[in-house]
Amino acid sequence: MILVQPLTTEAFAPFGQVFTAPHHPGRTGPLANLENSRLTAKGVLSMTCAEPATSPLSVTKLERHPYSSQAFIPLDLAGFLIVVAPKLDNGAPDLNGARAFRGTGEQGFNYEPDVWHSGFAVLERVGRYVVLIWRDGTSNDEVFADLDQPIRIAFR
Amino acid sequence: MILVQPLTTEAFAPFGQVFTAPHHPGRTGPLANLENSRLTAKGVLSMTCAEPATSPLSVTKLERHPYSSQAFIPLDLAGFLIVVAPKLDNGAPDLNGARAFRGTGEQGFNYEPDVWHSGFAVLERVGRYVVLIWRDGTSNDEVFADLDQPIRIAFR
Repeated sequence: MILVQPLTTEAFAPFGQVFTAPHHPGRTGPLANLENSRLTAKGVLSMTCAEPATSPLSVTKLERHPYSSQAFIPLDLAGFLIVVAPKLDNGAPDLNGARAFRGTGEQGFNYEPDVWHSGFAVLERVGRYVVLIWRDGTSNDEVFADLDQPIRIAFR
Repeated sequence: MILVQPLTTEAFAPFGQVFTAPHHPGRTGPLANLENSRLTAKGVLSMTCAEPATSPLSVTKLERHPYSSQAFIPLDLAGFLIVVAPKLDNGAPDLNGARAFRGTGEQGFNYEPDVWHSGFAVLERVGRYVVLIWRDGTSNDEVFADLDQPIRIAFR
């Protein structure tokens, strides 16, 4: 079990950026450090509708995108859970440094390239969100790590 | 005065793509033809909160982004109005071909590079939306055309 902490700009800084929509007239941005280091890759915008996860969440694999950032923007969402982990010198996730963050339906965020992370788990009710990533359709788009022991996260 | 038509995939096809979020579990995408033809430019994600426009809307200038697509994604929005125009051989907007589209708060859309368009006018109440564009901070980011006669659009 690892503790879940609120998603904040400061706590998430080693992994990427957190942003929220303005509530007063005006524009905020650039919100995130969008990165794509492959000329062959193209920006892909998608929308997902997902059922909520049930507690405890069991994370059995992590993924990273070596050449692309990945931004998540809630459209209609009660909240979400994500797990991130630093990268060891051998490229594997450092599970001792894994952290779980809980975000609200008002919070978007962006993973820096090559950051180990779990799938995006929607909480409480069906949720909808946008994802922005760069892909070229090859196996370089993402790298997976199967975990010997699942990371289990209790929440409510 | 020009007539306002509903924003549909078919009607908007000469100018870009229209997309909506899925309402059943699953993912939709790629939603849009994201384009950036400058190595010097970087993807910029921003969020805007805007007051609603009042009728009649008076469009006094148009803009185009020669090297970048531009995507708009509603976050919390009742509806919006946009004006687009084909490009004449001399680069100016063809105002005889100008069209006005009304979109709902469920519809995102993406301008192809170099499409003449108005600012994004929020309708009915304060609205919030996301914009994705590529910029390098130079005057190549956008080109403006001041209109000799404003385009006036009545709506309710």
